[in-house]
Amino acid sequence: MRALVFDGRQLTAETDHPEPKPQAHEALIRTVVAGICSTDLEICRGYMGFTGVLGHEFVGVVESVGSASETADALVGKRVVGTINCVCGRCDMCTRGLREHCRDRSVLGIAGRDGCFAERFTLPVENLMAVPDAIDNDRAVFTEPLAAACQIPRQLRIEGTPYITVLGDGRLGLLVAQVMSRLNAAVRVIGKHPAKLELCEKWRIKHRLLDETTPRGDQDIVIDCTGSADGLKLAMQMVRPRGRVVLKTTVANQAGVDLSPLVINEVELIGSRCGPFGEAIALLLGDEVDVLSMITRRVRFDQAADALNLAASGDAVKVLLEFE
Amino acid sequence: MRALVFDGRQLTAETDHPEPKPQAHEALIRTVVAGICSTDLEICRGYMGFTGVLGHEFVGVVESVGSASETADALVGKRVVGTINCVCGRCDMCTRGLREHCRDRSVLGIAGRDGCFAERFTLPVENLMAVPDAIDNDRAVFTEPLAAACQIPRQLRIEGTPYITVLGDGRLGLLVAQVMSRLNAAVRVIGKHPAKLELCEKWRIKHRLLDETTPRGDQDIVIDCTGSADGLKLAMQMVRPRGRVVLKTTVANQAGVDLSPLVINEVELIGSRCGPFGEAIALLLGDEVDVLSMITRRVRFDQAADALNLAASGDAVKVLLEFE
Repeated sequence: MRALVFDGRQLTAETDHPEPKPQAHEALIRTVVAGICSTDLEICRGYMGFTGVLGHEFVGVVESVGSASETADALVGKRVVGTINCVCGRCDMCTRGLREHCRDRSVLGIAGRDGCFAERFTLPVENLMAVPDAIDNDRAVFTEPLAAACQIPRQLRIEGTPYITVLGDGRLGLLVAQVMSRLNAAVRVIGKHPAKLELCEKWRIKHRLLDETTPRGDQDIVIDCTGSADGLKLAMQMVRPRGRVVLKTTVANQAGVDLSPLVINEVELIGSRCGPFGEAIALLLGDEVDVLSMITRRVRFDQAADALNLAASGDAVKVLLEFE
Repeated sequence: MRALVFDGRQLTAETDHPEPKPQAHEALIRTVVAGICSTDLEICRGYMGFTGVLGHEFVGVVESVGSASETADALVGKRVVGTINCVCGRCDMCTRGLREHCRDRSVLGIAGRDGCFAERFTLPVENLMAVPDAIDNDRAVFTEPLAAACQIPRQLRIEGTPYITVLGDGRLGLLVAQVMSRLNAAVRVIGKHPAKLELCEKWRIKHRLLDETTPRGDQDIVIDCTGSADGLKLAMQMVRPRGRVVLKTTVANQAGVDLSPLVINEVELIGSRCGPFGEAIALLLGDEVDVLSMITRRVRFDQAADALNLAASGDAVKVLLEFE
């Protein structure tokens, strides 16, 4: 089958990649559409030391399941999305309800498990969620990153009407901005790309170009979605004393950030990763976030390598890979 | 008067330093005993870009006040300790109850204000607190760093019986260990110095040498008191997913720390600085922490430069400067 494979040095569009075989608890999924995430690009720069098939944002159709069960059988032929952490269910993290932090997990296209930039791939049945008919593929493929945005309000206790700055006008930043602006908060987005900030204008979310912004140490919450090591430094300049910085950025090579301001200003820095699929699907179902405007380009899977280059350019927001 | 002055390049024991003059709202304080803190040592390496008289831990006697008032007059002749942040009382931080984060503050011996490694110095009257007779000078001089330790439980919500690791067996680490072990928690100290860890043995606090410790990502809370840029890296390896790291370390030159684990494990990193003097004095008054065992050496002020060198060595815990 066709698959986009990173071997630790380079990316290759293979045409005869071995077909995956589902284990007893897994489903075999045919990819319909996949989304390119900054993490995919960072992996190609060495992040996580991952080798294998890339990709973790998808809409697919379940072709078969490893072993029959009522739950599993009901999914065959269904359009699905899926959470990306594949967990043991037995370790101390799983048993205390932190399954996404399983000690023995694999992560789709990120750690120890081939991803979805392929014609077919596998995931545990328990990771899959059927997509309601009302959500088309172009929307449903945003479930995973939208869930990651929904994780932030879960981690933050929002009190009063905080001033919130979202740093970064990229794929994740624009989703985070939409999610945060639903809260009782004064949200603004700081970005580098006028074309992307126009989306904020459309959504009636305050926005400003980074070049026109002076950090004043007055924001209650700053969310770093820059995908750049500079983001944290800037966030520390923007957040007020005793404020909170949410760090979404993971980069392969992080430059040294001086954390003295964090101590002096008693700032809380909160790492944030994957989020609740149920909430994301509910937002998509209610049409409460606009993801369609974020799609820059649809690229056929045969041009996947070009698609990654496009996604890496500053101009693109979401680039989708189409398999059908 | 005599004063220990850092000019940005070197430390000089001056004998004819100008006498300080208290402003209307300030008191003139005669130093009785002062404590050497790692921050003093970091300042000599360039931290904060401070120049002037060093020192911020003291017990002194109020010689005079800038202008008379009932509160001020009552302090003359009294033995006092004092908080180190001198604030405007009007800015957004002051008015929201975060005075120690005043936008326009000076900090005794750290930022914009001469410190207490001198025969006399000034502080606002409102910063001073009379020392109860039952607390002798050797104990009272620990008020400031003990308050900094007391700040940690104020910032953390302690639930259940968390596993807490205090990283560092130095001046601050040993105070933090004593404060944290009063909570409903399983506290251990990880250090490099067998002689210092013996104090933990005496206090019945679990301890271990760093060389004999394998980070397992299983601690609910890790408190970095190492005073070294390596401390945070180690803390990130020791803390469990969704755990908390308290950062007390401020260093002049911080090496690059890869914060990807913070994002992946959704760790909270909490900066922590100065703390409540009232709590510290209450602990000293009740003899609930043992600070006397932490005094490595008393040095006459004439040998202050030697005292700083001693404090910088790995063997010393607390080095006191005596003025009388």
